Amino acid sequence: MPTEQKDNGLTVSRRAFLGTAGGFTGALLGAQWWQGMVNSAQADVRGWSGTSPPPDLSGKDGIAVVDASKLRLCKEDLGDYIYLAPEKLGGGTHAVDLGRGRTLAWISYWTYGDACPISHHLAAYPSADPYQGFEFVNSTQGGDNVMIYGLDTKIKERGLLDRFGQGNHLYRVHFDGQSMTLIEDVAESTGIGLGVHTTIYPDATGFASADGQKDICAFFDRPARDQKTQVLQAFRADWIGKASNGSLEDNWAKGGTLRLTRLIKPKETGKFDLEGTKGNKIDWEMVPMAENLVELGQLPGDDPKALTGLDAVVHHPGNRWSSLVIRMLSSSIIIDRTTWEPVCVLHNPEGSPDNLPITKVSSGPDVWECRFEDIKCVGHEAGFSPDGTRYTMMNNIQQNNMAVFDTADPDPRKWKKVAFVKDPAWVGEYPSPFHLCFSVDGSKMFVSVLYPKPHNSSCVVVDTRTWKIIKKFVNIGPDCQTMSVSYDGKYVFQIFSGFQRLSAGVFIFRQDTLEPLGFLPNFGGHHDCVIVPTKNEHLRNSRCTTL
Amino acid sequence: MPTEQKDNGLTVSRRAFLGTAGGFTGALLGAQWWQGMVNSAQADVRGWSGTSPPPDLSGKDGIAVVDASKLRLCKEDLGDYIYLAPEKLGGGTHAVDLGRGRTLAWISYWTYGDACPISHHLAAYPSADPYQGFEFVNSTQGGDNVMIYGLDTKIKERGLLDRFGQGNHLYRVHFDGQSMTLIEDVAESTGIGLGVHTTIYPDATGFASADGQKDICAFFDRPARDQKTQVLQAFRADWIGKASNGSLEDNWAKGGTLRLTRLIKPKETGKFDLEGTKGNKIDWEMVPMAENLVELGQLPGDDPKALTGLDAVVHHPGNRWSSLVIRMLSSSIIIDRTTWEPVCVLHNPEGSPDNLPITKVSSGPDVWECRFEDIKCVGHEAGFSPDGTRYTMMNNIQQNNMAVFDTADPDPRKWKKVAFVKDPAWVGEYPSPFHLCFSVDGSKMFVSVLYPKPHNSSCVVVDTRTWKIIKKFVNIGPDCQTMSVSYDGKYVFQIFSGFQRLSAGVFIFRQDTLEPLGFLPNFGGHHDCVIVPTKNEHLRNSRCTTL
Repeated sequence: MPTEQKDNGLTVSRRAFLGTAGGFTGALLGAQWWQGMVNSAQADVRGWSGTSPPPDLSGKDGIAVVDASKLRLCKEDLGDYIYLAPEKLGGGTHAVDLGRGRTLAWISYWTYGDACPISHHLAAYPSADPYQGFEFVNSTQGGDNVMIYGLDTKIKERGLLDRFGQGNHLYRVHFDGQSMTLIEDVAESTGIGLGVHTTIYPDATGFASADGQKDICAFFDRPARDQKTQVLQAFRADWIGKASNGSLEDNWAKGGTLRLTRLIKPKETGKFDLEGTKGNKIDWEMVPMAENLVELGQLPGDDPKALTGLDAVVHHPGNRWSSLVIRMLSSSIIIDRTTWEPVCVLHNPEGSPDNLPITKVSSGPDVWECRFEDIKCVGHEAGFSPDGTRYTMMNNIQQNNMAVFDTADPDPRKWKKVAFVKDPAWVGEYPSPFHLCFSVDGSKMFVSVLYPKPHNSSCVVVDTRTWKIIKKFVNIGPDCQTMSVSYDGKYVFQIFSGFQRLSAGVFIFRQDTLEPLGFLPNFGGHHDCVIVPTKNEHLRNSRCTTL
Repeated sequence: MPTEQKDNGLTVSRRAFLGTAGGFTGALLGAQWWQGMVNSAQADVRGWSGTSPPPDLSGKDGIAVVDASKLRLCKEDLGDYIYLAPEKLGGGTHAVDLGRGRTLAWISYWTYGDACPISHHLAAYPSADPYQGFEFVNSTQGGDNVMIYGLDTKIKERGLLDRFGQGNHLYRVHFDGQSMTLIEDVAESTGIGLGVHTTIYPDATGFASADGQKDICAFFDRPARDQKTQVLQAFRADWIGKASNGSLEDNWAKGGTLRLTRLIKPKETGKFDLEGTKGNKIDWEMVPMAENLVELGQLPGDDPKALTGLDAVVHHPGNRWSSLVIRMLSSSIIIDRTTWEPVCVLHNPEGSPDNLPITKVSSGPDVWECRFEDIKCVGHEAGFSPDGTRYTMMNNIQQNNMAVFDTADPDPRKWKKVAFVKDPAWVGEYPSPFHLCFSVDGSKMFVSVLYPKPHNSSCVVVDTRTWKIIKKFVNIGPDCQTMSVSYDGKYVFQIFSGFQRLSAGVFIFRQDTLEPLGFLPNFGGHHDCVIVPTKNEHLRNSRCTTL
């Protein structure tokens, strides 16, 4: 039965909406819709329900402000760190030797026969001497996502997205001190293809990944160099709205049930059947600051009403708890990785209950459910502080803040909200907090703040005693994404990049003095970055605990 | 009739050599052959007939030497220049804002549906304010070249090189002050696909391109932003060896006839029929320092015996003469662009005649021939000094020097060799001079010097009064490619990059004081670079006069 879709007031059946070209019409509509936002800072911001004033440079709110656009090439010797960044539509990943000022090595996935390699997110395992070798896991986004940037491209009509361009690969890459080699596609080995965040466990024994188009997350082991990866556990989340027969907006807003299902590997094949586009509920990602496009019926797919937006997993540094980040519900399912059972659900919106129970409702397969009275807003990224005593997640669109939980109690069912990070500039839907990380000493949280075009994005510094913003670096560049910190406690690396083809680079400032240092070029449409850790303890400040 | 091929003493027919997979066996053999050279600095240098000592750091030859590997991140404010570099197997091109230390914009060709986008060479038209907009032409190499790096890739078995991955595109790209857009594939518009050098005419009214696998060069006009490019003239070069029934080595060494044919656009279609792999004589490029693989029968293809290696065109700054660079014969055909007729052939090897006549032998189509008594060595890149009084081209493999011609006379038939640039270190086949450019004031020539693995490559400075080397920057990085100079006379940018996946970056030193300044990261397997000119006169030091 075709799902109903609303498009600018027109109600059309999903099949009619998608047209005859297997979703291409829908994709083109999406491309037209999003073109203004993601293609050019000069274009109209169509698809957005308002405009945003430029960043305030006056400092009249009493918070120190730095206009980053005045800075030039960074002239600091940054030490011997390797900065690893995926290029998104650049199609590969590169490792920069920061102190020596050169690219150490790089990989380009189309050369391996991947017809749509959107190098999306990555995480690196610690290596005692990364200059001699390290390993990382790099997801590639679902192929149809290449269609949402308004490019005049033939990639879909040439069939390049059909078979070898579906994306959702999980590439395991080895650097041997000389060059990078693709040693395994974990999606192919296990049958589980996921295209979004990858996070290493705090003990470096494996990694988790997730995909908000499929609502699936999986936990993988870490095999020896010449062995194949195994799935430890996999889960799917589904949403059953109380008002599922009403408007799409009500489908979430009026509450409902979050269902978590343990996925079972078919015995006959010994492999899951979730590679490529298999399992997609929506045809392309929920672009940041636009989770409400699903609610507005403007993101087509097989099953948008069941969407929870399970896009990421982050790990508590204590190594027992992992948090499944659920964007549509601004919630986090806490999983016990010793029992592989969910223990509770953190609910982030201001005014919502802090901690919801999740109950097993059946076995074979295992299914758990959690009921929500309402959903006040969508959410986005999340993370644990390096000492594990705090957890934060963005509330976006309908709210615009960051909920901070006290997570010091050994029982996650007792984790409670203790603060909200807010800014007078975060009014309406945007600018909005986007990604976060913590200083190595835990005294500060750094938050990238996404401004709609034509403005450049910002990075703000939050004092983790007061959860107040104490400094702002504004006008950095289009679309500030994740940050990394150097493990010596000295530097913060704020990567930025237009989603497609706009300017890109890294803005660098001090973790301790908060002095701005300038820019380094960095190519591609970065969506992530990590400094290769040299010890497991560095994972507390790496792509493990935060996104 | 199948051509004979020798492989390690075995004589096999070409068809047997290529196997049943359309050249794949040959390509795999090539990949195996080349893996050592191009894939890892640790690997054996198979396919090379010797080894090379590391760069001499002693300075015992009396020439100042700088060990570049000791330098770190460049801390100089480089001014407001835009540095444009293609990524080769990175699949795209990026523009770096040097002074502001960030990537200004970038493009990734696979996103347009190009299944094998080896972003190879480029040249930029002058723009009064390139920050507001500029245009460039970017060739992509023939697709089978992706197979020669020893990658464990599925790109060929998945059919991705068959239709949309044949390469040899000539992409015209426009930067609008925000982002880069692919506005035309000149190969598609004109039917002439060429995958190697592109060079803008000195008056910026169009560009030339060439391809040493096809032995074809073409001269194109420069249309308005929304118009399609037209072919002004196109030529094919062929070799008829005197000893063509003997060994492949003798096919060239024992002399023969160079034939130049003017190509005619079919009236019926209004388009040439030379897109993609159409017209290829050999299946992949002659890798630098390995032109002799053709002579040794180790580079398969449809017609290797007819190969001349017409890989590039460079333009005399006076704007009348263009030089067709012929690698297999270490020669240059000088074309008069006012009459579109060849006027003479410069022959570069030491001990060979300087200037050979080329005679029209038929019309409809026009055909000219030039006879060679012998071919003493192969050649590589070439270029004119900014004042047009000198021309130089590398003699490689059998010789290892640079011939310098006096080109001050208005009649190219009077151009004569006046010097050879040599270095005591250039013994045997390598290290060998590779690319060249001149300082803005013309007082110095900069030459990249390719060392075989595991050594890093060098850049040397030549005094253009004496044609002696006066300084050496050694241990820069793997595979130093072309250089660019800033038009204020201050800096030289020596790009380097492993052919695939090794370290990459830009080494920077002063044009005037020759002081080394350090490195900037630069991603991908660069084969070229250019600083976007702001005036036509900058083309004298840009990708116009030199390679």
